[in-house]
Amino acid sequence: MSKEIVLAADLGGTNLRMAAVSRAGEILFRNGCETPRTGSPHAIVDAIVQSAKECKDSCSDHEIRVLAVSVPGTVKNGSVVTTPNLPMLDGFAFAAEIEKSFGIETVLENDANAAAVGENWLGAAKDFGNSVCLTLGTGIGGGVVLGGTILRGTNGAAGELGHVCVEANGAQCGCGSRGCIEQYASASAIVRMANELKEKFPDSVLHSNATAAEVFSAAKCGDALAGEVFREMGTYLGIAITDLINIFDPEAIVICGGASEGWELFAPHMHATIKQRAFGGAERPPIMRGTLGDNAGILGTARVAFDRLDSLSR
Amino acid sequence: MSKEIVLAADLGGTNLRMAAVSRAGEILFRNGCETPRTGSPHAIVDAIVQSAKECKDSCSDHEIRVLAVSVPGTVKNGSVVTTPNLPMLDGFAFAAEIEKSFGIETVLENDANAAAVGENWLGAAKDFGNSVCLTLGTGIGGGVVLGGTILRGTNGAAGELGHVCVEANGAQCGCGSRGCIEQYASASAIVRMANELKEKFPDSVLHSNATAAEVFSAAKCGDALAGEVFREMGTYLGIAITDLINIFDPEAIVICGGASEGWELFAPHMHATIKQRAFGGAERPPIMRGTLGDNAGILGTARVAFDRLDSLSR
Repeated sequence: MSKEIVLAADLGGTNLRMAAVSRAGEILFRNGCETPRTGSPHAIVDAIVQSAKECKDSCSDHEIRVLAVSVPGTVKNGSVVTTPNLPMLDGFAFAAEIEKSFGIETVLENDANAAAVGENWLGAAKDFGNSVCLTLGTGIGGGVVLGGTILRGTNGAAGELGHVCVEANGAQCGCGSRGCIEQYASASAIVRMANELKEKFPDSVLHSNATAAEVFSAAKCGDALAGEVFREMGTYLGIAITDLINIFDPEAIVICGGASEGWELFAPHMHATIKQRAFGGAERPPIMRGTLGDNAGILGTARVAFDRLDSLSR
Repeated sequence: MSKEIVLAADLGGTNLRMAAVSRAGEILFRNGCETPRTGSPHAIVDAIVQSAKECKDSCSDHEIRVLAVSVPGTVKNGSVVTTPNLPMLDGFAFAAEIEKSFGIETVLENDANAAAVGENWLGAAKDFGNSVCLTLGTGIGGGVVLGGTILRGTNGAAGELGHVCVEANGAQCGCGSRGCIEQYASASAIVRMANELKEKFPDSVLHSNATAAEVFSAAKCGDALAGEVFREMGTYLGIAITDLINIFDPEAIVICGGASEGWELFAPHMHATIKQRAFGGAERPPIMRGTLGDNAGILGTARVAFDRLDSLSR
């Protein structure tokens, strides 16, 4: 039992990362490659199997019985439902195809769900059975852990927390709606908001099309435009998190992902908004930065694999 | 086992209703009285015990082992956390006090959770394990059933769906926040919106301070102001329900409560908004009117009692 490990793959639009992970959450080996973009789902299966074989060879003194793969999209029963950044996988029986080539039980998970599970297992929310996690990246992903189990919903589409509406007639979102929190608190939102505020702040050091990192640096140096971007980000994040508190009454809320780097700039506005808005009856949960960084997803994916392994053993 | 029944009490700010309910959901006997407003929680305990004794005497050929009470507030571990309309109960060990007087196991539930359980057990959502219920009354209550179990949260405060924000800088809400759906789709919201729109619609038949029922009648007769109220109600309800679809990916959404009487007037706008806004990846769940009417709460409360009875038997 102690020598049993799992393989966890984090399949992104750009890169495929894989790791061999122990039951204690140690990463024993890791590798990676670019995500094949030939348009064929089989090229992606081949890349995963290739990486998995490398991991297996490097950990030949361990037993590997489950491989879990997280994908940037919705998954259900081992198939991909939709992946906007890897459309060749839509409707593809991904887990079954990997299993056929690699010969090992394979499960799928949504990437933001995996990050939520990772932070709940070994990260910021590790002492809590109920936690809600927001991943602020290019877009915003979400994951809800209830009693230690991820909330998946009827079609594997629960936890799309990036599309909680915070401004009824707000910015157009890629999902077809308007005013989603993804349009106010993601890396791409930071870029958009900085661009839109340029006219109001002629003295800003920011040029057109500044990156999120440049807006962050400018805000740290006291640039008023950049400061306003993080004020808006924090305020809207506070509105969305208030919704999540009123809906889930969770034990903890975790914020991770690249755009959470701006924490010190947006968090004061976020906390002030939640204090003003959250429903009186409930105690407010702690709102914390994730502690696992880039590893949240791969560790959460490993945990999903261990959960499957344990269900196989029962 | 077949002669085992439960008692279910629905304690409101104005009335206390009670029923003896069979395992099949039949109401075998019911009674009620005004809610004592002496300021003492013990007067309410006495009224419940009095009603319960009447029910018990009228069903003397059945065995009664559990009494459940739904209250308009948050409850946790048999105590009331907060009840804005019955503040004398705040922090009161309500279940234990009833048990002491009546000698029967007593459990508490939030009233909107009870309605959600009722509609999930015997009403509109009875074929679904996962459903979300909104009760449109004077305010808006919510309940979320996941895998047949109500979502209660850390402090008993989950499912406060009336306080999902639909307009960041919208109408002030009693909860301290702004723009909650309760301010756009409850009976009191109908009254407020009609008042606010009067200047824009000088030809409206509606006088100042029209009741929700009068706004409803006027809309059915083609009054433009009243029609606009239900258009806004439907649109905002669509925004809130889109959030709930994106968050829970439920099998069904149920709308009940007195203000759902305006269904034919607001539902077309609600459906159109959801169609525009809900996340592409997910199938959209059916959105249905509750079918149990005023009995949703009391039947749901009875189901909570049966669940407790079953857990005692295990």
